[in-house]
Amino acid sequence: MSGSIFGTNLKMSTFGESHGVALGAVLDGFPAGMELSEEDIQKFLDRRKPGSSSITTPRKEDDKVEILSGIFEGRTTGTPISMLVRNTSQRSADYSEIASYYRPGHADFCLDAKYGFRDYRGGGRSSGRETIGRVACGAICSKLLSQMGIEVYAYTKSIGDVEIDYNRFNREDILKNITAMPDLEADKKAVALIEQCKKDGDSIGGVIECVIKNVPAGIGEPVFDKLDALLAHAVMSIGAVKAVEIGDGTTASKSKGSENNDAFINDNGVVSKATNHSGGILGGISDGRDIIIRAHVKPTPSISSLQKTVNKDMEEIDISIKGRHDPVVVPRAVVVVESMCAFTLLDLMISNMHSRVQSIIDFYK
Amino acid sequence: MSGSIFGTNLKMSTFGESHGVALGAVLDGFPAGMELSEEDIQKFLDRRKPGSSSITTPRKEDDKVEILSGIFEGRTTGTPISMLVRNTSQRSADYSEIASYYRPGHADFCLDAKYGFRDYRGGGRSSGRETIGRVACGAICSKLLSQMGIEVYAYTKSIGDVEIDYNRFNREDILKNITAMPDLEADKKAVALIEQCKKDGDSIGGVIECVIKNVPAGIGEPVFDKLDALLAHAVMSIGAVKAVEIGDGTTASKSKGSENNDAFINDNGVVSKATNHSGGILGGISDGRDIIIRAHVKPTPSISSLQKTVNKDMEEIDISIKGRHDPVVVPRAVVVVESMCAFTLLDLMISNMHSRVQSIIDFYK
Amino acid sequence: MSGSIFGTNLKMSTFGESHGVALGAVLDGFPAGMELSEEDIQKFLDRRKPGSSSITTPRKEDDKVEILSGIFEGRTTGTPISMLVRNTSQRSADYSEIASYYRPGHADFCLDAKYGFRDYRGGGRSSGRETIGRVACGAICSKLLSQMGIEVYAYTKSIGDVEIDYNRFNREDILKNITAMPDLEADKKAVALIEQCKKDGDSIGGVIECVIKNVPAGIGEPVFDKLDALLAHAVMSIGAVKAVEIGDGTTASKSKGSENNDAFINDNGVVSKATNHSGGILGGISDGRDIIIRAHVKPTPSISSLQKTVNKDMEEIDISIKGRHDPVVVPRAVVVVESMCAFTLLDLMISNMHSRVQSIIDFYK
Amino acid sequence: MSGSIFGTNLKMSTFGESHGVALGAVLDGFPAGMELSEEDIQKFLDRRKPGSSSITTPRKEDDKVEILSGIFEGRTTGTPISMLVRNTSQRSADYSEIASYYRPGHADFCLDAKYGFRDYRGGGRSSGRETIGRVACGAICSKLLSQMGIEVYAYTKSIGDVEIDYNRFNREDILKNITAMPDLEADKKAVALIEQCKKDGDSIGGVIECVIKNVPAGIGEPVFDKLDALLAHAVMSIGAVKAVEIGDGTTASKSKGSENNDAFINDNGVVSKATNHSGGILGGISDGRDIIIRAHVKPTPSISSLQKTVNKDMEEIDISIKGRHDPVVVPRAVVVVESMCAFTLLDLMISNMHSRVQSIIDFYK
Repeated sequence: MSGSIFGTNLKMSTFGESHGVALGAVLDGFPAGMELSEEDIQKFLDRRKPGSSSITTPRKEDDKVEILSGIFEGRTTGTPISMLVRNTSQRSADYSEIASYYRPGHADFCLDAKYGFRDYRGGGRSSGRETIGRVACGAICSKLLSQMGIEVYAYTKSIGDVEIDYNRFNREDILKNITAMPDLEADKKAVALIEQCKKDGDSIGGVIECVIKNVPAGIGEPVFDKLDALLAHAVMSIGAVKAVEIGDGTTASKSKGSENNDAFINDNGVVSKATNHSGGILGGISDGRDIIIRAHVKPTPSISSLQKTVNKDMEEIDISIKGRHDPVVVPRAVVVVESMCAFTLLDLMISNMHSRVQSIIDFYK
Repeated sequence: MSGSIFGTNLKMSTFGESHGVALGAVLDGFPAGMELSEEDIQKFLDRRKPGSSSITTPRKEDDKVEILSGIFEGRTTGTPISMLVRNTSQRSADYSEIASYYRPGHADFCLDAKYGFRDYRGGGRSSGRETIGRVACGAICSKLLSQMGIEVYAYTKSIGDVEIDYNRFNREDILKNITAMPDLEADKKAVALIEQCKKDGDSIGGVIECVIKNVPAGIGEPVFDKLDALLAHAVMSIGAVKAVEIGDGTTASKSKGSENNDAFINDNGVVSKATNHSGGILGGISDGRDIIIRAHVKPTPSISSLQKTVNKDMEEIDISIKGRHDPVVVPRAVVVVESMCAFTLLDLMISNMHSRVQSIIDFYK
Repeated sequence: MSGSIFGTNLKMSTFGESHGVALGAVLDGFPAGMELSEEDIQKFLDRRKPGSSSITTPRKEDDKVEILSGIFEGRTTGTPISMLVRNTSQRSADYSEIASYYRPGHADFCLDAKYGFRDYRGGGRSSGRETIGRVACGAICSKLLSQMGIEVYAYTKSIGDVEIDYNRFNREDILKNITAMPDLEADKKAVALIEQCKKDGDSIGGVIECVIKNVPAGIGEPVFDKLDALLAHAVMSIGAVKAVEIGDGTTASKSKGSENNDAFINDNGVVSKATNHSGGILGGISDGRDIIIRAHVKPTPSISSLQKTVNKDMEEIDISIKGRHDPVVVPRAVVVVESMCAFTLLDLMISNMHSRVQSIIDFYK
Repeated sequence: MSGSIFGTNLKMSTFGESHGVALGAVLDGFPAGMELSEEDIQKFLDRRKPGSSSITTPRKEDDKVEILSGIFEGRTTGTPISMLVRNTSQRSADYSEIASYYRPGHADFCLDAKYGFRDYRGGGRSSGRETIGRVACGAICSKLLSQMGIEVYAYTKSIGDVEIDYNRFNREDILKNITAMPDLEADKKAVALIEQCKKDGDSIGGVIECVIKNVPAGIGEPVFDKLDALLAHAVMSIGAVKAVEIGDGTTASKSKGSENNDAFINDNGVVSKATNHSGGILGGISDGRDIIIRAHVKPTPSISSLQKTVNKDMEEIDISIKGRHDPVVVPRAVVVVESMCAFTLLDLMISNMHSRVQSIIDFYK
């Protein structure tokens, strides 16, 4: 079955392996008439680029995007936008050993079980590089959303047990801090924690939060393509994500109705809510308040400290994974979460345009 | 956009409103040759029926299912299986008042924002009765899975802060206890908590856990239709679910790689794992161990204690929601989570049959 | 694989067998706010009802439709519209014999090859009664199209070698004449031909033409979901259709460019065309002129004159198919073609609403 | 809406414009383990290459394909196969004039109506070059089909009124003759006809026939994804195709049941048919005999003889289209029809693998 295509009216079709010729995506269904350049996409890709700080892998990945189709005289034409990033810095030699055993926490064994063999170089398509296509598409969707006044921004909420303090929240810090935390103090503590992990040959997990502001009420298609259901699908499909929360999330299961319900209020003639426990979604449809979604990311499975596993001769062995790995994937995954949320929201905003007969009649009048 | 159809090779198309003529589903793509009777489905529907205990709504809903198509001489024919449950006990009078205002925590406002008006009787399609179609389809999928030795079972893990103790876990208690908790002691405490909430005119949330045993390794279609991504979609689409976890879930974000990785072992000649932090899924593909998924369910938004909201004239008012409401939806939602998981797994098991060229060649030899 | 669901933003999910409990459809994605009653649908279903003339089967099929969901206070709510027609007049005894052999021209053998067995009563789901669900959905789409000034009407263009004369074309005759021919003279000749076939224990094919007027230019989604490609899919999926033509159709393959091209003209300030060889579609997109599509329908395969076939013991035998069969299916299939065209066009008109970025921005302003 | 993705379990996602940077496709869902090289694809692409004979455009298009992903150690891995052909020989100057008016028979006007503007260079995405992605995917599917003993081959059946004689049918001539006619005599006549058209500044249409041998009975998913319905969709989506026929096709509408029905026979213990009027498909499912499909192709709309049209100032003008155009597109479109048929058949063969419960149970035993 085809598993690398996502979306309904908008569709992203991504491709590519860590050490193949190239990675990329085809974005199909994007409407005509928006100005778009390679820089718009490069800005997003650069946010997932490694090698820029002490806490990421020292691998250099240039990841220069080339747009192959769908643009004419600087504007989208309504035809598929194909985008390509060639692999350049991959050293396949690094990975020759891992062909012989199954790395714990990785997909190696599952890929063999499913397909009969695997492209073991850098994890093949189960590598984090797979997200290049997602981010390229997300960049385009974010641009259109921002033209409608909708802001989508994700950030690191916690790494291990270091959590941001919302009182110190500074959105501009997201892009400045190497942890992508919008809180300078937490960032410092997190960096220290990560460096300790690195020293220990270990790794650490964390939480990414994404906020979407100014979404009109009414977005989401019950009962299966609810806004929260599709966001959960989109975000859980990112490698290493093990839990997804909306609004109060896991806390809601310990709450009482009197605590969890958000009272509706009259905000200068507009229906609004006194609180936002729902995370901007009720009954699977946006309620006009900020959309809030959190992704729980597991620690990088590639660690250099000793682990037990089996090799292809079914012998139990001890391994130590060498190579240039991130001790934490969270900071680089922030833009991936943001991209998947932007794409999903835009796709559902498009779908919502024909929720009413009158909108169709008006459009064709 | 069509939002009431779910699945890829298997598709469930559900329909119906709380107080409409009938609810049900069409299950399309189910293979030919399985024995199927209305009792197979009724058994599942009875598990979500209210009125059977002190902690559920006293509404009587018979919910007798009728199969309309897709069966010949007691077996599935490969054509769509259409199933119907007529509404009988609905008292529309109960709901006349709620037409005039937006109930906090409900979809009322969002539905108006999206569609311009709403079927306010019992919440219309945003009612829990919507899940009848899901459960009917899940019952059929569960039957086939069990013929392959695969067990899918969900249960209540917690209600408020009352949590089951796995040392007392007794699977047979799931269907016996009115909380669907597999732990008699926790059940008693939870019942006390729920009855207190009821007395207080309040409600409470909880957690549902679903375990799937004996799933072969290799199920899931990266990168977007990973097993965990589709389970998250399926389960988050159930009303009142606010978070979905796989395996260690939210805990993974606080863990180190050395803790979170599951070592592969040689289990009598078969690749297995020493632990199961992954919840049976690595890289979006089943790894051969138990699949474990949790759904966090918010408290029932319909409570009789006083709440603030706005009415259709935009006046801020105080309301108290009367009517026959569950103080907790968790026990009745257990079979819904189980149904969505069974459906999703079977759909992906079908897709996995053509992961290898050799399987196709062998099939047509 | 799920094969009984059609459409993209609009989806029809049909179900039911000739001699099962009921047939029907779920129409998902239809927008909110249109007035809809059972009569709207019944009018369409009555056009495919047999027993009304000398040239159709004397079987009585009441085919009363019941709407089960998706309507509130007489208007569509945006939720799935489920529609049901119970089987009442089926005499299963008529079909007991055909269980033992494969009827030439029917799907009997193919169904066994695919599914391992078949519901042989009246052809099961391969019966013409399967189209009840299609027509019910088409009726709803036609109603919305007509509110936008778009007219969709099909008629019998020919039966055997009796063809209508466009000089005598009278649209009102379509519903009056039992052949559904819009030409009284051709109708008479065709009736004579059909009655001769009936006398001979034989049957005859014919051509259905569908015209769609006032379609705005711009409808269709290249390169795979072109308007003509989806119309071909929709119409070829109707049982007994063996060819589909758009505009000049098969004639185009014998034409020169200078003959086949339609010159563009300035029609009072609007771009129009001097001729319409294209049948209203260029590059898969509507060009503003009448859409013209033709379906070639094969003769009813159930004939009473002697035929050769094999039985389930693989013996070659002579058979004569008894029962109440139409000597020609064309007149009753006219409304099916019309329904599939209306559905397909509306689905693509909905999709076209988001072809331009500016339309999305304007919608959410 | 996304319109450039086709298929169900197999999906082709094509992209690219005539004068953009590159064209290509992503083939998603193709199973793991088949040997595949760029030569496999190049062979197919070379069949649609122009410039090789007196009857095609003298444009040189190298059309060298590069595989970017989905292959490891020479075999497919089950991940998306991305394929690229860079544009090299395009002379945009040729097309500067056509930006100012609507070419008759082309999509120019429709694209403007839909998207607000168009990439006018060489027709943009409505160019025949769009089919590069289709052919690249078709080549891969054909390779797997041939490994199962299934032969898919298309050829030119007629150009204008020059038709092949089946008595002279020689399959090897398809690739040798510049018309792709499997009949030397007809080829000669057709070449003469085409050269006359060229001299006259005119063009001509034709018919492409595709035969598929050795398809097992049982392929096709009623009622909407019937084999004939999907073939019609696939083939009608090719630019310039105006009609699609299956088996007897348009002739069936003039036939009697006694003529059109194919008698079933016992062919050495296997159910077969005495004739093949059905074109190998009954009830939308393959019946075990040759699949036969015909596509009617209109004449190339770009002709140098004088035509009337309107320009962007809405003036009616006379134009003569210069440039290097094929006087007939049929020979180059043969491989496109073949590719779309191969893809569609393979996709449905994959779907058919789970038609029976027993196949699923057996697979996972």
